[in-house]
Formats: sequence, C-alpha cells, structure tokens
Amino acid sequence: MDKLKLGVLRVLTTDDENILNIHGELLEKYFPEVKTETKCIPDQPNGIYDDESHKIAVPKIISLAKRWQESLDGLIISCAGDPAVEKLKGILSIPVTGAGTPTAAYSLNIGKKVGIIGIGKKAPQSYIEVLGNNLIGYEKPHNVKNTNDLQTKEGKKEIIRSAQKLEEKGGQVIAFACTGLSTAKASLLLKEHVSIPVIDAVFAEGLMMIGMCRYRKVFGGDNL
Amino acid sequence: MDKLKLGVLRVLTTDDENILNIHGELLEKYFPEVKTETKCIPDQPNGIYDDESHKIAVPKIISLAKRWQESLDGLIISCAGDPAVEKLKGILSIPVTGAGTPTAAYSLNIGKKVGIIGIGKKAPQSYIEVLGNNLIGYEKPHNVKNTNDLQTKEGKKEIIRSAQKLEEKGGQVIAFACTGLSTAKASLLLKEHVSIPVIDAVFAEGLMMIGMCRYRKVFGGDNL
Repeated sequence: MDKLKLGVLRVLTTDDENILNIHGELLEKYFPEVKTETKCIPDQPNGIYDDESHKIAVPKIISLAKRWQESLDGLIISCAGDPAVEKLKGILSIPVTGAGTPTAAYSLNIGKKVGIIGIGKKAPQSYIEVLGNNLIGYEKPHNVKNTNDLQTKEGKKEIIRSAQKLEEKGGQVIAFACTGLSTAKASLLLKEHVSIPVIDAVFAEGLMMIGMCRYRKVFGGDNL
Repeated sequence: MDKLKLGVLRVLTTDDENILNIHGELLEKYFPEVKTETKCIPDQPNGIYDDESHKIAVPKIISLAKRWQESLDGLIISCAGDPAVEKLKGILSIPVTGAGTPTAAYSLNIGKKVGIIGIGKKAPQSYIEVLGNNLIGYEKPHNVKNTNDLQTKEGKKEIIRSAQKLEEKGGQVIAFACTGLSTAKASLLLKEHVSIPVIDAVFAEGLMMIGMCRYRKVFGGDNL
C-alpha cells in the first residue's frame, strides 16, 4: 500500500527543525498510511493569533501552496483558523484542508455537546459554523496570547483549568481550536484531568485529509 | 503496517454472500488499511426502515456484537439509524459506530449546508442532532419504502430527483441517510446528475471508525 504524501504547511515561522516538524511527526505517528513533508511561511515567529496576523499570512500561504502542490497528494494548512483554505480550494488541484473545520466536524462524531479551547478572543469562525447550537462554550487559557505561551508550565496549568470548566459546563467532548495545543501534547496531559474525550486538531486534520484523498480516489472529481 | 480488523454488522438479513458482503467489500476498496468480516442479524429481510423494525433489531444487534467483539479491532453497525450504538458504547470494549453520526459529521467537513436523502419518514435523529441549523432539507425518494426499493431502476431515478431537489435548495453537500444508497452505488450515479459532493454512508462509517481505532491507540482510554 503506497503511503499518501501530505504537505504540512506551518504558519509559525521557525528554523528549528524539531519545532518545524512536530505536526508532521505526530501525523506519521497517528496515521501509518501517510508520510509528510513540512514547510513554514516566513516572518511570523508567533504564528497566527489574531485578525491581523491571520490576514498577513494568507498571501504567503497561497504562494507557498501553489509552488508546492505538484509533489503532494494533499496539503494540510496546520492551523485551526483555516487560513487561506477556502481560497486554495479554488486554486489547487489537490485536496486541501485546515485544522479547524476537521476538528469541529470530527468532534461531533464523538459527542454532541462540544466545548472548545483556543487562543483567540473568540472561537474561530469555522467552529461556530460547523457546531452551531452544539457549541456549549469557548475557553481561552488565562494569560495565553499565542502558540508559544501554550508550551510553558503556567500555560499548561491554564489549559487544564479551561478543560475542566468546559466539562463542568456539560461538554461531552473537547475540541482544540489551536494546533499549538497538539505541540504542547495537551491531549495526553488532559487525560489525567478531565473524563471526556479531547479531540486533538493535528489528529483531526490528518484523519479528514486521509478521507479527502481516499474520497477523490474512489469517487473521482475535485468538488471537495 | 497491520490492517485493522473491522466487523461489519448488517441489519439486513440475507444468505446471499454477495449482498451480505457488499459493505465490507466497499470498505476494503475505500480503505486499504482495513480488512473486514461481515455478519447479519436474523429475520429482517427488509432491514430497518421504521421505528418498529428499528426496535426489534436492537436486542439482536447487541447479542451478536457481544459474542463477536473479541476477534475485532472495531465494530461498525452498518446502518444510518445507528441502532443500538449508544447502548453498545457502554457494553463493548472495542470502538463501535453506526453509519449515521459519522456521515453527518463528515459531511460538515466538506460543506456547511447539508441536504439528506434517506428512506424513513424523516431524517434520522443523529443527523438532526449533529447538523442542527446546517441541515437544509431531507428527501425520501418517491415510492421507496425500504433498502431493497433503492436498488431498482425506478428507485434510482427517484434518488436522482431527490438529490437535484437538495442541490436546488442550496445544499453544498449531500449526505446519505441510508446505507442502501451505498449498496445501490448512488454516489457514482449522482456524479452525473448533481455538481455538489455526495457523502456515502459506508465511506463515512469506515473513515470515522479508522479514526476511533487510531485515537484509542494513540491517546488510550475508552471514553469514545
């Protein structure tokens, strides 16, 4: 069985190979049917964390994706804000996904009342649209402003507090709205502190991308 | 890479091996990472198509699932009504899914406005709960009463008509609410007649089951 070759486009600028490749390595660990290659956009060392940082990332993502697609079966924009994804669907000839829509959609497969943890002031738009009335709450860990803040000891304590609030509120499942929570291995951390399932955004983007690649192979067409 | 061994529990009683195995064969075609084994419940030659046929199937499904689970990595109750699934989650030690919740959830990964085609008087409850306000319409093909009626020439014409109505209504994606539409190969049929993606219920149940098996392997726990 040939492995699917997936591009992992990071919106966090780094020249540290260990940090750069962490989503790709997680994807290969979760899904033995894929192999990954990772690249990042330039000049955004704090990633995407608000409207402005989202906006300036979009043309960089599109430019990189266009140059890169030829060697890939599918492209993951590994960010819960799904930056540039809708535009890229009209441009690329391969399946493309962000992390946000897949995570929101997959969480509904696991539980009907979904709580979200993210780093923006409010839940990303795709989560609001996908979850509708099934969204029971959004939490931003205290004092966390960007993806790097999630990796500290203090940041991790606040992630736990956010998850516990969502469980108390009646959540049946927690969905991550930032892939920095995957980098922080927060799913494993939260297993000790909440009793409901936690949907990791890197896990969900990988599963749904496998689905999109397989769908196209079986049913043809490019109207994904 | 070891293949996942999935049980495919059919709620349509048949001793015709070709009919019995059709969902399992589709799953192995869609997803090379799985191998399947299929069994069916007794005494329901027309499957599940209303409240009464659903109700009498539940104890038969539970009985078969309990005896079968030991040799499986995961169990799919291959029916869009998700019969017995919630009860089985509390009973089995392996992941279990129906076709309904996965299809509704996966369709939201592909488009935000979802139209449904099924054989019941109304959309199955799981679709209503998962889709909420994203559900833009439900269509039951004219004169189709059970899964066998979907396989006829007249049935297929009516499936096309239902799909076209949902596209005209503004649907961005069509989700099947009956696995008999997979047996009828309606996804391929509809490619000629509508321009929006069509989510096959057997495809979606397979993808989401792969997700559930992988999730458990990586993150542990059985609170799926």
